[in-house]
Amino acid sequence: THTHWILFMFLLTLQRVAPGGEAGVWPMPRKMSEGSERYALHPQGFSFRYGRDSSAQLGCSVLDAAFRRYFALCFPENTVETDRLSVSAGHGELTANTVWGALRGESHFRDLIIRLSRNLFLKIEDFPRFQYRGILLDTSRHFLPVRTILKTLDVMAYNKFNVLHWHVVDDPSFPYQSQSFPDLSNKGAFHPQSHVYTQADIRKMVSHARLRGIRIIPEFDSPGHTQSWGKGQPGLLTPCYKGLHPSGTFGPVNPTLSTNYNFMGRLLKEVSTLFPDPYIHLGGDEVDFSCWKSNPDVRMFMKKMGFGTDYGKLGSLYFKNMMNIIETLNKTSVVWQDVFDYHSSPKSLDVVEVWKAGCYMCEVRRVTAAGVRVILASPWYLDQPGPTHEWSRFYTVRPLAFTGTEHQKRLLIGGEVCLWGEYVDGTNLAPLLWPRASAAAERLWSDEAQTSSVSQAYPRLAAFRCKLLRRGVQAQPLFVGHCKHEYEDL
Amino acid sequence: THTHWILFMFLLTLQRVAPGGEAGVWPMPRKMSEGSERYALHPQGFSFRYGRDSSAQLGCSVLDAAFRRYFALCFPENTVETDRLSVSAGHGELTANTVWGALRGESHFRDLIIRLSRNLFLKIEDFPRFQYRGILLDTSRHFLPVRTILKTLDVMAYNKFNVLHWHVVDDPSFPYQSQSFPDLSNKGAFHPQSHVYTQADIRKMVSHARLRGIRIIPEFDSPGHTQSWGKGQPGLLTPCYKGLHPSGTFGPVNPTLSTNYNFMGRLLKEVSTLFPDPYIHLGGDEVDFSCWKSNPDVRMFMKKMGFGTDYGKLGSLYFKNMMNIIETLNKTSVVWQDVFDYHSSPKSLDVVEVWKAGCYMCEVRRVTAAGVRVILASPWYLDQPGPTHEWSRFYTVRPLAFTGTEHQKRLLIGGEVCLWGEYVDGTNLAPLLWPRASAAAERLWSDEAQTSSVSQAYPRLAAFRCKLLRRGVQAQPLFVGHCKHEYEDL
Repeated sequence: THTHWILFMFLLTLQRVAPGGEAGVWPMPRKMSEGSERYALHPQGFSFRYGRDSSAQLGCSVLDAAFRRYFALCFPENTVETDRLSVSAGHGELTANTVWGALRGESHFRDLIIRLSRNLFLKIEDFPRFQYRGILLDTSRHFLPVRTILKTLDVMAYNKFNVLHWHVVDDPSFPYQSQSFPDLSNKGAFHPQSHVYTQADIRKMVSHARLRGIRIIPEFDSPGHTQSWGKGQPGLLTPCYKGLHPSGTFGPVNPTLSTNYNFMGRLLKEVSTLFPDPYIHLGGDEVDFSCWKSNPDVRMFMKKMGFGTDYGKLGSLYFKNMMNIIETLNKTSVVWQDVFDYHSSPKSLDVVEVWKAGCYMCEVRRVTAAGVRVILASPWYLDQPGPTHEWSRFYTVRPLAFTGTEHQKRLLIGGEVCLWGEYVDGTNLAPLLWPRASAAAERLWSDEAQTSSVSQAYPRLAAFRCKLLRRGVQAQPLFVGHCKHEYEDL
Repeated sequence: THTHWILFMFLLTLQRVAPGGEAGVWPMPRKMSEGSERYALHPQGFSFRYGRDSSAQLGCSVLDAAFRRYFALCFPENTVETDRLSVSAGHGELTANTVWGALRGESHFRDLIIRLSRNLFLKIEDFPRFQYRGILLDTSRHFLPVRTILKTLDVMAYNKFNVLHWHVVDDPSFPYQSQSFPDLSNKGAFHPQSHVYTQADIRKMVSHARLRGIRIIPEFDSPGHTQSWGKGQPGLLTPCYKGLHPSGTFGPVNPTLSTNYNFMGRLLKEVSTLFPDPYIHLGGDEVDFSCWKSNPDVRMFMKKMGFGTDYGKLGSLYFKNMMNIIETLNKTSVVWQDVFDYHSSPKSLDVVEVWKAGCYMCEVRRVTAAGVRVILASPWYLDQPGPTHEWSRFYTVRPLAFTGTEHQKRLLIGGEVCLWGEYVDGTNLAPLLWPRASAAAERLWSDEAQTSSVSQAYPRLAAFRCKLLRRGVQAQPLFVGHCKHEYEDL
């Protein structure tokens, strides 16, 4: 990914203006030269162009689309004040080694251009601290309308988030409309028509995300958290027993049946075609062994396999089979930390997501010591609504503050903000996410030494929030105050 | 107010339908006869008419407007399923002893008519438990757009709230645009044009509220919480001293200057003309005596008055003067409990609002024992965002569970949900209020014995929330689940 250099230029009409500081630039870039020359932009004289020597040229759909999108953001009708500007000529240059870098560099131009002072600093050097900067959305506990997800992707891009971890299905509902297994959503969704994501919906989301430099990683959590699957796929879940008889309730996926792995293989094959990202999240959290224990067929299987009473071994077996499936699909699997904890050969795992509270750094140390990559989520659980000033709690996380070698540190590939859906749907998603997730965004993008002060971050984040309001995002206030353009429900 | 009887009829086309329970009827009416006869309504055959013997007739603007408004709510285009309905004839009757009673009775018809089952129970007897059912909005810590307030009034009416306690001004900003003292908002608002309420805005709000049976009680909090007043009214605030010299900061309104009472009199006269409600809220909370103590002129005044070092007496003097002003305006004053606590003749107060945490019932007991009316707010502070399931905490309040005579109980005229503005503006007001405030609404309207179970309330409140979504209200979810019509940001 570092082989091509992209160079593009933006031609513009400039006028010197008074200095205005760095308010609203978020997340903080690595280097921003605040030289004495400051310019204001004239929209009529402004255009994005590919550089002559750029390896990307007209026809690069991602950047072509970005030019169009960002021009509108740079010059929204109501903020152009042409009378203040006079005309002179100039140009700026953006050099990036990938299309995605160009995309995110561009978002800096936009940041700088549309803030109140309309200053432009021509020299910015920037790169992300972590390659994985994610947000988890949960569409099982509540259905999130497609439009809500698309809008969230837009705001993610403003924050330089680059991964949507989509926790598609779970116990309460199965909104993924499968081509191979239509009964899963026909019987497992809250409603088979109005509360499902069709294949077309998903293609739209994936494309919308891609144009904004965002990967979508789907999670099909199993073997636990699968109650909704059972409705449309008889035989998938383990029948729980009360004494000698089935209790009528069901537990995790039945790991003793090869038919279930066949089903999983076919479902994940479909999913892996729909989602181009190399990662697939397999879940694996909170597997309740008690139902497996209660079931005589499972107990017999345990005996046959020589597992004794260690149901972690059964869980391991399940995940070995699942990871074989993922391997044949040429994908990389992500699992929740539980799998690392009960797995008999944890080193065989690809990527582990650390989510539990308590000493999460201990777990990060253990997983990286085993040579396995880590995504850190524990300190960024936003789903429990709390006072907005919690943003500082999310901001002051130090993801690398664990004891370990340099190699271990490099294995921490990034972090993730989790917005679980128990109390979240389209009515409150935006104010719950923004700007609290923005605090995590800066932590994951920027240099920690340059962004360690909450009090210095506060005015920048407050200004960034006002910018989000102007773009129609329902980002809630940090504290007492106002924005030039307040959010108004129209 | 109990002299006129209003009778009006609604003529409608009915069809028997299957029973559907009481889902989504909120707050719970006193009596609802669930007789075996159930009917569905045909919009073409439905109309509101005044009864022949009704003392209100065509031309009663409040009810005329309500008929129009409610018809649209009863039959939104997307919920009419005419193919399911056949035609027969019938009529219903609503008897109420005031226009406002008719208005709120009508909201029951609407509740019943538009829920999914479209059942109609013809016999409802209902009346409010408390006459004062309020919501406090704070427009000083953040400016709330007029449209946000109008929309909130609509939702208040759906919940049978009948008072908007408008905490207009406070330390951070003074958004009230005064005709007599334009500098107050010119200098004290966040922005003198975009962040103010004009006289026309306020007339619009008052009228909008009136048509929905809602009183607007303005609060001009003093002598504390007045920092923003000082900018546009020099001499109003007490200069604080550090030793022998002014520190440059200012404290509460200077109570020693007659010019300040003249100013207050003129301002409140203007306010009392604009807001027709008989109540005006004078605030009086959290008066910081330390600035008064530091000021040599105030100390001299204390000496002259023989107050010793009891600054509560100075506060009392201030409020005696304020209440004289209110009396000459023929208004009733409401004050925060602090005034009752420091006032030298607390029995002279009209209405006291109890807001402090801790043993708020002790305070209710003390105030009612002094023969003074009480509004209870302490248990309904919603401004600190919390998990939605707090609704049950707001629901299980027992406002009359204090030791006192029957007379004392009658002095508790109602309660109020407070949504202070530190972390609240137009971006998150609706999900923070709804449906948590709805829990308080039922507590204030309905019979406590019939509504004491959280688990029985849950499905009704969840259904009521879905109804709010269908009306475009961003009411957040109670817990995992779905609505037929989800909220979608368009």
